[in-house]
Amino acid sequence: MRIVVLTGGIGGARFLLGVRAYAREVGAEVTAVVNVGDDLLLHGLKVCPDLDSVMYTLGGGADPERGWGRVGETWTVKAELAAYGAEPSWFGLGDKDVATHLVRTTMLNAGYPLSEVTQALATRWQPGVRLLPATDDRLETHVVVDGEQGQRAIHFQEWWVRHRADIPTHRFVFVGAESAKPAPGVLEAIAGADVVLIAPSNPVVSVAPVLAVPGLREAVTEGSAPVVGVSPIIGGAPVRGMADRCLSVLGVECSAAGVGRLYGARSEGGLLDAWLVAPEDEGTVVPGTTVRSAPLRMTDEAATAQMVRAALELV
Amino acid sequence: MRIVVLTGGIGGARFLLGVRAYAREVGAEVTAVVNVGDDLLLHGLKVCPDLDSVMYTLGGGADPERGWGRVGETWTVKAELAAYGAEPSWFGLGDKDVATHLVRTTMLNAGYPLSEVTQALATRWQPGVRLLPATDDRLETHVVVDGEQGQRAIHFQEWWVRHRADIPTHRFVFVGAESAKPAPGVLEAIAGADVVLIAPSNPVVSVAPVLAVPGLREAVTEGSAPVVGVSPIIGGAPVRGMADRCLSVLGVECSAAGVGRLYGARSEGGLLDAWLVAPEDEGTVVPGTTVRSAPLRMTDEAATAQMVRAALELV
Repeated sequence: MRIVVLTGGIGGARFLLGVRAYAREVGAEVTAVVNVGDDLLLHGLKVCPDLDSVMYTLGGGADPERGWGRVGETWTVKAELAAYGAEPSWFGLGDKDVATHLVRTTMLNAGYPLSEVTQALATRWQPGVRLLPATDDRLETHVVVDGEQGQRAIHFQEWWVRHRADIPTHRFVFVGAESAKPAPGVLEAIAGADVVLIAPSNPVVSVAPVLAVPGLREAVTEGSAPVVGVSPIIGGAPVRGMADRCLSVLGVECSAAGVGRLYGARSEGGLLDAWLVAPEDEGTVVPGTTVRSAPLRMTDEAATAQMVRAALELV
Repeated sequence: MRIVVLTGGIGGARFLLGVRAYAREVGAEVTAVVNVGDDLLLHGLKVCPDLDSVMYTLGGGADPERGWGRVGETWTVKAELAAYGAEPSWFGLGDKDVATHLVRTTMLNAGYPLSEVTQALATRWQPGVRLLPATDDRLETHVVVDGEQGQRAIHFQEWWVRHRADIPTHRFVFVGAESAKPAPGVLEAIAGADVVLIAPSNPVVSVAPVLAVPGLREAVTEGSAPVVGVSPIIGGAPVRGMADRCLSVLGVECSAAGVGRLYGARSEGGLLDAWLVAPEDEGTVVPGTTVRSAPLRMTDEAATAQMVRAALELV
């Protein structure tokens, strides 16, 4: 059995722990297609927060308390950069994390594409899941906000980390999306998949940038594999993160139904064959899709594997 | 009074502490022209060991015990790079140090010359001395050593740090020296100097690469300022470092006389008007120069200032 997961962010990383546990149980292969829209260049370092969250989480190196970054992280480099007055200073650049970015940046500057760099980094972390960036090309999520002279676009991370997504916001733009190509292996993985799972990641800034890569969305919607989404919203609130703020920018209700309808039914030009919601959201209707409920709190790996099992039972 | 110091390495940094102390006392201006031959690109970071040694030492941020790098340094990034198998792993890249290199590399990549970057970094450290790299251009000291298939050239740092200068060695090459230009301000500082001091730095790999910048040596030898050198060798042994190993590659005796004659008298096409040696080396003769002795152990700032005073009394 071959499972492809479209994913991004910390929720997606935790979900993959369950997918991997399930896959080990049944002998399935897992490919994660990971969002790169959050990526940024910081002090000359190429930082890929979503790829790193997945890699650190699956490799046992993530900080379970903080949710992002490395366990036992230290912050010497960050403090020193601040002492030099080097901006930006609002990003949490840990010392351990810096080493990852140094290796990645050196390889990228030497001409390796991000997908190969990711594979090289994964030889250390042994995530047990094939990790593919959605694209090797530049695709950055920018956010159009109010500026002093009309609207201006800022990088997603500036909006998310610096402004806590709490400033007047108009829309999201996936810079570079028009000319981006799916990373090598992505279309093949989707075409060969027995099922495509949409992780309970932020639909607006984690999953949407993945689907914005030309050809990727079509590979999913026109492929033979059924598509099952897992709701990132439980009882009207995001499981974690600030999906509510992102959804409100789009004028979408922050609910399991709202996100399900945003994705839409494959039979009606959308993405989903089935939509898994939490028991709190039982009765959710997404026209054209099969909706079922199951516990969606990713409290531990076993609970998350159970959630994956429930998702796969939908098809 | 305007003092120019040709310098490099840790000995040079300590010497500058004394020059600064003396200069504050008499109201003199100091310009340090610093070796860049040790500079290297490491994990994509531009590392300038001599500029940093001077900057950290004069800025009160150097580790007085270890002699190089930052006080209170930590090594998380280095350990993580090793965990990725990233080479080279033999260079002591501290976490605090990494921040300096990130700021420098970012500025260099943005197009700023090294001299301006150095000035920017110095706004934090307030060294109290004008710091100029000998050149903004690439000038790297390589070392020709025995390889498996004949001779091969390695970077100075690999020879020095990895091999502890303890492998069969043929010669030193200053890569890029032919086309390097003195950094802005260097020739003007030398032309306007009342005295030029040659720091008790390694003559072969600290001072020689400075003088290898076309036009720089001529500016010193043909300038109006007297040139006083301070011996880095006391009683036949380097004050610190491995100057003995460097001198033996050139077939030069490791003594105050050997180094003095290597520099040579200005009146005979060399560099020096005067040569300051330690009391242990009293009686040293360097034909064509005035030789005097004074205590040369840089035990503290006051002792070093006294040594500078003795050097300046020679002219």
